[in-house]
Amino acid sequence: MAAQAAAAGSRAWGRHFLPSSGLFTRLQSSQSRVQRLTGRPSVQSRLFSNSKILVELDENTGVATMTMKHPPVNSLSLEFLTEFSISLEKLENDKACRGVILTSALPGIFSAGLDITEMSGKSEAHYTEFWKAVQEMWLTLYHSRVATVAAINGSSPAGGCLMAMSCDYRIMADNPKFSIGLNETQLGIVAPFWFKDTIVNTIGHRAAERSLQLGFLYSPTEALRVGLVDELVPGEKVPLRAAEVMAQWLAIPDHARQLSKSLMRKPTLDRLLAHREADIQNFVSFISRDSIQKSLQKVMEKLKQRKG
Amino acid sequence: MAAQAAAAGSRAWGRHFLPSSGLFTRLQSSQSRVQRLTGRPSVQSRLFSNSKILVELDENTGVATMTMKHPPVNSLSLEFLTEFSISLEKLENDKACRGVILTSALPGIFSAGLDITEMSGKSEAHYTEFWKAVQEMWLTLYHSRVATVAAINGSSPAGGCLMAMSCDYRIMADNPKFSIGLNETQLGIVAPFWFKDTIVNTIGHRAAERSLQLGFLYSPTEALRVGLVDELVPGEKVPLRAAEVMAQWLAIPDHARQLSKSLMRKPTLDRLLAHREADIQNFVSFISRDSIQKSLQKVMEKLKQRKG
Amino acid sequence: MAAQAAAAGSRAWGRHFLPSSGLFTRLQSSQSRVQRLTGRPSVQSRLFSNSKILVELDENTGVATMTMKHPPVNSLSLEFLTEFSISLEKLENDKACRGVILTSALPGIFSAGLDITEMSGKSEAHYTEFWKAVQEMWLTLYHSRVATVAAINGSSPAGGCLMAMSCDYRIMADNPKFSIGLNETQLGIVAPFWFKDTIVNTIGHRAAERSLQLGFLYSPTEALRVGLVDELVPGEKVPLRAAEVMAQWLAIPDHARQLSKSLMRKPTLDRLLAHREADIQNFVSFISRDSIQKSLQKVMEKLKQRKG
Repeated sequence: MAAQAAAAGSRAWGRHFLPSSGLFTRLQSSQSRVQRLTGRPSVQSRLFSNSKILVELDENTGVATMTMKHPPVNSLSLEFLTEFSISLEKLENDKACRGVILTSALPGIFSAGLDITEMSGKSEAHYTEFWKAVQEMWLTLYHSRVATVAAINGSSPAGGCLMAMSCDYRIMADNPKFSIGLNETQLGIVAPFWFKDTIVNTIGHRAAERSLQLGFLYSPTEALRVGLVDELVPGEKVPLRAAEVMAQWLAIPDHARQLSKSLMRKPTLDRLLAHREADIQNFVSFISRDSIQKSLQKVMEKLKQRKG
Repeated sequence: MAAQAAAAGSRAWGRHFLPSSGLFTRLQSSQSRVQRLTGRPSVQSRLFSNSKILVELDENTGVATMTMKHPPVNSLSLEFLTEFSISLEKLENDKACRGVILTSALPGIFSAGLDITEMSGKSEAHYTEFWKAVQEMWLTLYHSRVATVAAINGSSPAGGCLMAMSCDYRIMADNPKFSIGLNETQLGIVAPFWFKDTIVNTIGHRAAERSLQLGFLYSPTEALRVGLVDELVPGEKVPLRAAEVMAQWLAIPDHARQLSKSLMRKPTLDRLLAHREADIQNFVSFISRDSIQKSLQKVMEKLKQRKG
Repeated sequence: MAAQAAAAGSRAWGRHFLPSSGLFTRLQSSQSRVQRLTGRPSVQSRLFSNSKILVELDENTGVATMTMKHPPVNSLSLEFLTEFSISLEKLENDKACRGVILTSALPGIFSAGLDITEMSGKSEAHYTEFWKAVQEMWLTLYHSRVATVAAINGSSPAGGCLMAMSCDYRIMADNPKFSIGLNETQLGIVAPFWFKDTIVNTIGHRAAERSLQLGFLYSPTEALRVGLVDELVPGEKVPLRAAEVMAQWLAIPDHARQLSKSLMRKPTLDRLLAHREADIQNFVSFISRDSIQKSLQKVMEKLKQRKG
């Protein structure tokens, strides 16, 4: 009976879907985006380490690991974001790469989110360039053709949470000292609409509403319960478990997995693409306000005192 | 490690969002809406009691309590709805008010929903005026600039459930005699699309579909499980817990919380605003039908017999 | 107190919704669709058995049972799909019928989904006709005026899962040998957008994303946890429980239940209606590819070997 049913599963399966042309336009154009960012064609290197992210590709498995190593907290500076997008796009252009595991080399922190110093005391041109880089990171990661697993081996607030949510699967170290969430409102700021879209897609409308308004940082246990992460394992087992999960995802034929991913995520991607310039304008005019700049100064002074 | 991660949370936070202009147009125009409803400018009174709702504002905490006291069941009559909207808008125009707790003075009932007598044997002009008041209540409450907590100390069917869902947070008395839900179909009627939108936003598409078709009334335990309420406490602890929860919401800077709320709720609000007149027309033509009027007569006769 | 609240539930209920004209156009036009499919007017027969589906209508309860009996695995061939749509539409045109229970006469299998032989080595005209029949089945079932309960007494992969999800309620036999899910990607194919819409409506965005990419087949226990089915009962109790559940759904006045269902499901239906021709074109051009035809040949050879 079970065998019959299993056979049935493949015999009388049917159905497929050929998405409308242009579905993976972004993926196909990633080469040109690399050129846009760097001014030079991307290199098909199989192994490369830059200053802030270590990239290792295992050609046997097709799995690359991107290990963030930008002390003290993997903050998302302009330079970091640019390196991140270029590294990921290089992997996407490498036919040997089918999956990417994203993790951190720093103890206790996955990524602390956007770098506040990029938003304080700079020119409008700088804010524009910075925000474009933030958008580019998300556009590249959220709709990547490769399978992506976040191995969250530390805290992951704000932009760090966004990176994790943009992967296909999230494994978090089961350590009550760690937390994850979009905590922007706690700092007096507001997540942009595409952060909101991403968290709604992950935990649903109601949980997202409460989470965003309160700027809630979830413990690993709470994050699992609400669906912000997919599973918890002891910290030392995160890398192994990430590799196991990735193998499950790569057991699926790439083109079918990619089209299914696009079917789910492209509408969300398209919302930002349709309003990308307005989103930049909003950021720049908001961040340029005197009141916001004063708030940022205070936050940075506090942080200096903590360090001192 | 934890300290570092915590510091990271504020150091490298980043991101914000400046919503497109007009985002809070409704909030900003509430003053004029009060004038529209009352024919006179709103008063900045800090404490006022009208016939059906007691409003108390604690200027130390910034928290107002709106206590519904319209026996026997806080039914939403035209007069009640008008008083509700005006009271809430007065609070919104009062800079000292940052949060509103909505509760009932009547034992065992939060609100029983729309008043059936307003929909039976009246003129089309009356039905139009009544339905506008129902819409106005929801438009005001669902997108209010203040933080809103429903202290649900009794049953809350139909329109009462809508009021509770339109708050930011729901605490229900853990009493198995109480129930909550959109039970319209049990009475042969249908919730309008914006009731549907509100429950989908609260409990998700599948649970809403089942709930609406069956007109399901949930016990407190079931309501918690499906996400229709956020937590249960013993009845006598509802007021204290509401105050505690409100303090959590008010710990967030108002402007960041408000913009996040709008980001989540404005698209739903805009759907009614875009179809407000058609929604009124639909209600009036439906309620004016002979078959519906006969049904309403029967329901009212039953209720009279129960009382007698 | 409870009595008062209960009384309140019916006294002060209020609200209804008269959907915009044309809301049930599809339902009203089902008669003509039967004619379109068969070339003759539908018959108001109260009991009929065709070759592949046994239809029994209990005129006392208003409940019909459609029992699929198309060995070996109730695969959805063109002939089966046509008979299914016609049978369901006959029931819809029969005023005595208020609910339909969908189940299988074959041990261990509900339905194995689309028949692969319809998609291999045929003409474009045949693929077009076949895909229209697949669409018609879903359009008819997903928005049916009658209450629909899936009595899932066996495995239900791919198109079988779609049929189950398109009912109003799902009861599955609690047998760990059975599985259910949209496993298309495991076969190298992709569910079309309206399969995707249907599963998102059933289990939410995040679970659907993971489910579709991995082509996940859920055990009954897992299916219950993720919300893909509504309850599990021992296999022998599935028919009885289906009858009990149907009675709950039929306790609601038909017109109110139908309008509520349409309020929830019509937007999803309309998406396919708006892109129906493009969806057919996509299917035909995809299935006609040499690479896909070769894959299908291999799958069929494997199946022949299993049988042999």
